[in-house]
Amino acid sequence: MNYAKWMNDIGDSFIGEMLKAAQNPSMISFAGGLPAHELFPDQALQRSFQRVFEEQGKPALQYAQTAGHPPLREWLASQHSRNGKPAKMENIVVTTGSQQGLSLLAQTFLDPGDVVFLEMPTYLGAIQAFQAFRAQLRMIPCDEQGIIPEELEKMLQEVTPKFLYLIPNYQNPSGKVMGLARRLQLLRVAQIYDLLIVEDNPYGELRFEGEKLPNLLDLGENVIYLGTFSKVLAPGLRVGYIVAEEDIVDHLCQTKEGVDLHSNNLTQRAVVEFLQEGLLPGHIETLRKVYKERRQAMVEAIERYLGDEVEMIVPAGGLFLWARFKNIANSFDYVEETIRQNVLYVPGSFFYTDQRITSEVRLNYSCSTPEVIDEGIRRLARAIVG
Amino acid sequence: MNYAKWMNDIGDSFIGEMLKAAQNPSMISFAGGLPAHELFPDQALQRSFQRVFEEQGKPALQYAQTAGHPPLREWLASQHSRNGKPAKMENIVVTTGSQQGLSLLAQTFLDPGDVVFLEMPTYLGAIQAFQAFRAQLRMIPCDEQGIIPEELEKMLQEVTPKFLYLIPNYQNPSGKVMGLARRLQLLRVAQIYDLLIVEDNPYGELRFEGEKLPNLLDLGENVIYLGTFSKVLAPGLRVGYIVAEEDIVDHLCQTKEGVDLHSNNLTQRAVVEFLQEGLLPGHIETLRKVYKERRQAMVEAIERYLGDEVEMIVPAGGLFLWARFKNIANSFDYVEETIRQNVLYVPGSFFYTDQRITSEVRLNYSCSTPEVIDEGIRRLARAIVG
Repeated sequence: MNYAKWMNDIGDSFIGEMLKAAQNPSMISFAGGLPAHELFPDQALQRSFQRVFEEQGKPALQYAQTAGHPPLREWLASQHSRNGKPAKMENIVVTTGSQQGLSLLAQTFLDPGDVVFLEMPTYLGAIQAFQAFRAQLRMIPCDEQGIIPEELEKMLQEVTPKFLYLIPNYQNPSGKVMGLARRLQLLRVAQIYDLLIVEDNPYGELRFEGEKLPNLLDLGENVIYLGTFSKVLAPGLRVGYIVAEEDIVDHLCQTKEGVDLHSNNLTQRAVVEFLQEGLLPGHIETLRKVYKERRQAMVEAIERYLGDEVEMIVPAGGLFLWARFKNIANSFDYVEETIRQNVLYVPGSFFYTDQRITSEVRLNYSCSTPEVIDEGIRRLARAIVG
Repeated sequence: MNYAKWMNDIGDSFIGEMLKAAQNPSMISFAGGLPAHELFPDQALQRSFQRVFEEQGKPALQYAQTAGHPPLREWLASQHSRNGKPAKMENIVVTTGSQQGLSLLAQTFLDPGDVVFLEMPTYLGAIQAFQAFRAQLRMIPCDEQGIIPEELEKMLQEVTPKFLYLIPNYQNPSGKVMGLARRLQLLRVAQIYDLLIVEDNPYGELRFEGEKLPNLLDLGENVIYLGTFSKVLAPGLRVGYIVAEEDIVDHLCQTKEGVDLHSNNLTQRAVVEFLQEGLLPGHIETLRKVYKERRQAMVEAIERYLGDEVEMIVPAGGLFLWARFKNIANSFDYVEETIRQNVLYVPGSFFYTDQRITSEVRLNYSCSTPEVIDEGIRRLARAIVG
C-alpha cells in the first residue's frame, strides 16, 4: 500500500506495543502516563452526565460549535490570563484531548520541512504529532531548569523555527520545573526573535512542593497554551483546550472543522456540570497527596534497590521520574528482560528525536500503589543490574 | 502569523458562518446536515451511560486503545463483510466521528500534490479534509447513478490517484443512489487500475424507497469503508468508524495515536450498551418514517412555490435534496437576501472543487417539520424568484 511519506520515516508504535504488554495482569507498568484510575471521581461525573441528560436533554446530543461548548469556553477563559489580561471565550478552543491540540497546531502551522524547536528530551506524543506533518525537529540543550536561553539564542541565529514547544511544569519525561527567572529570560529571547512559544501544561496542577509559578502565557506575548482535563479529571473523556490569540483560535477552528468537526458535545457539557459543582479543587488536592506518596515510594525504592546504580531527578510534581543508569550503555537493551520480569519502563531514547543511545529511563509512579512501586523497582533492579 | 500554506488556499469557513446565522431562532435552516434532534433516543442513551458508570465504573474513564473499545469493534465487525467474507475486529478502527475518518485517511495516504478523485459534486467536509493535506482534487463526471465508469477510466489513463472517494447511498449533496450494476462496473474498473476506493456511507440506513444495496466493501477488494453513528444515533457523541484491511487499520491507528490518542472511552462503551439493548433497528425505522414525510413535504412545497422554476432530484433516502434553479445564473448571489428572509440553504458551488458558478442548491429536510419546510420553501421562493 502506498502510504504518505511521513509514515515510512517512523517506526512501529512503541506506545502501542507497551499498551499491549501492559494488558498482562501480572505486569507492573511504569511505562504509561496513566492517572490513578481508582481516584477518578466517577460518582460525581455520573451525576454530571445525569444532569445534562435531565436538564439539557436532546440538544446535548446534536452537532455543536467547532470551538467548543460556550459555557466550557467561558469557564476556561476565566481560569487564564494572557500577558496579564483576562482571557476571553474567543481565546479558547476545546480539543479532543491535548494530543489533538498538538496535532491541530502542527496541521495549522507546519509545512513539510518547517523547523520546530523542542526541549531535550521531550514528550514522545509531541514528537509524533509534529513528525506526522514532516517538521524538522531540533532539540535545545537543557539544564536542571529546562531550556538554556543562551543555547536557544544560538540556535535562533542559525535557523528560524515555526515555534518552540515546551512543558515548563514537571516536564515529560524529565520532571523538571522551569523557575520564574528562567521563564522571564526565555520570554525575552522569544520577544527579540519574534519566536512563537507553545506551552504545554498537562501536569501543572499536580504540585507536591514549591510555589505555583505563573504560566508563560500570563508572562508574555506570543504564547499558545495547551491545557487538559486528562490528568486532573479523566483522560477517557478526551477534553483538552488551547488558549491563544483570536486569530490563531480562528485558524485552529478551521483546521478542526476538517479534522473532527467538534469534540464530544455531551461530554463537554458534563464537564461544565462537574466544574460548576465545585469539586475540582478538592479532587486535585487528593491527587497531589496520593501522587506525592507514590513519588516518595518510588524515590525510596530506587534508593533501596538501585542505590549507587542510578542518578535520578526527584520530581516536585507531575507523573514521571527520570533516571540514568550509571553502569549500562543503552537502557533499550533491557526491555525484553524487564518484560520477562513483568515490569515495564520507557527507554530514554524515545524522548530524543535522534533516537540516541542513552542509559536513561522514564518511570511513571501515578498509577501504582507504594507496595506495587516497591515490587516493580525491585524487579527492574533485578532485570537491569542483576 | 505564519500559518501552513494550505490555510492560505482556503477561504473563510462558510459552514461556520452558516452555523452562526442558524442560531437566530426565527431562521429556518435547510443549510446544515443536522438530524432531527427531537428524535434522539436520549432516554435510552441516558440509561446506557448510567449502566456504564454502574457496571464498568472507573476504567471507563481511563485512557483506552487507539483502535477503539474492543466490544464496539467486535459489534461493528459483525455488521460488515469484506468482499463476501465476515469482517474481523482487526478490520475496524473507531473514529471521532466520520469526519475524523476522512482526515485520518488524508493524513495517512496523502503527500502534498497527490491526486484524489471525487464525485462531481461531493461532500464539502471531504473536500476540506483532503485540501488540508494539499491534495490535488479531481472531480469525475456523474450521471443519475453517480460516477460514470467510462469517465473514470479516461481520467485513470491520465493520472494515478491515491484513492477515489464516493458516497454511493443518498449522496451528499445530490441525493443520488448508485445502482448495483454501476457498483459492479466501478469495481471492475478499480480492479483493472488497482484503484483504492473510499466508500463513505453515513446515510445508507436512511432508506425511504427501493431495495437495500450491498456495500462496495462487500462486493470487491481494495475498498475502505467509512461508517458513523452520527445520522442513526446522535452526532454530538462523535462516534464513527472505518472498515479496512488490517495493514491499513494499523497505519490509521499510528496516525490516530498522534492525532487524539483514542476516541472518547466512556461514550464508546455507552454506545455498546445502547446497541446491546437492541434499540437501534426500531430507532432507524422511526427515522425513515419521519424523514420520508419531511422529504415529501419538501418535494411538495417545491412543486407548490417553485413549480417550473427548479429541477430537482427526489432523494430515495438520506438528508438532502439537490435542486437547480432554471432562471438564475448563480445561487450564491441569493444568500444575503435569503438570510434577510430568514431561510438558509447551501449554494451548489461549495460542493465543487473549482468553486464554479452554478444555480444549484442543497436543501436539508431532516431537521424541520413539514409545516416549517413549507414556510421555508415559501420564503426561499420569495427571496430567489421574487
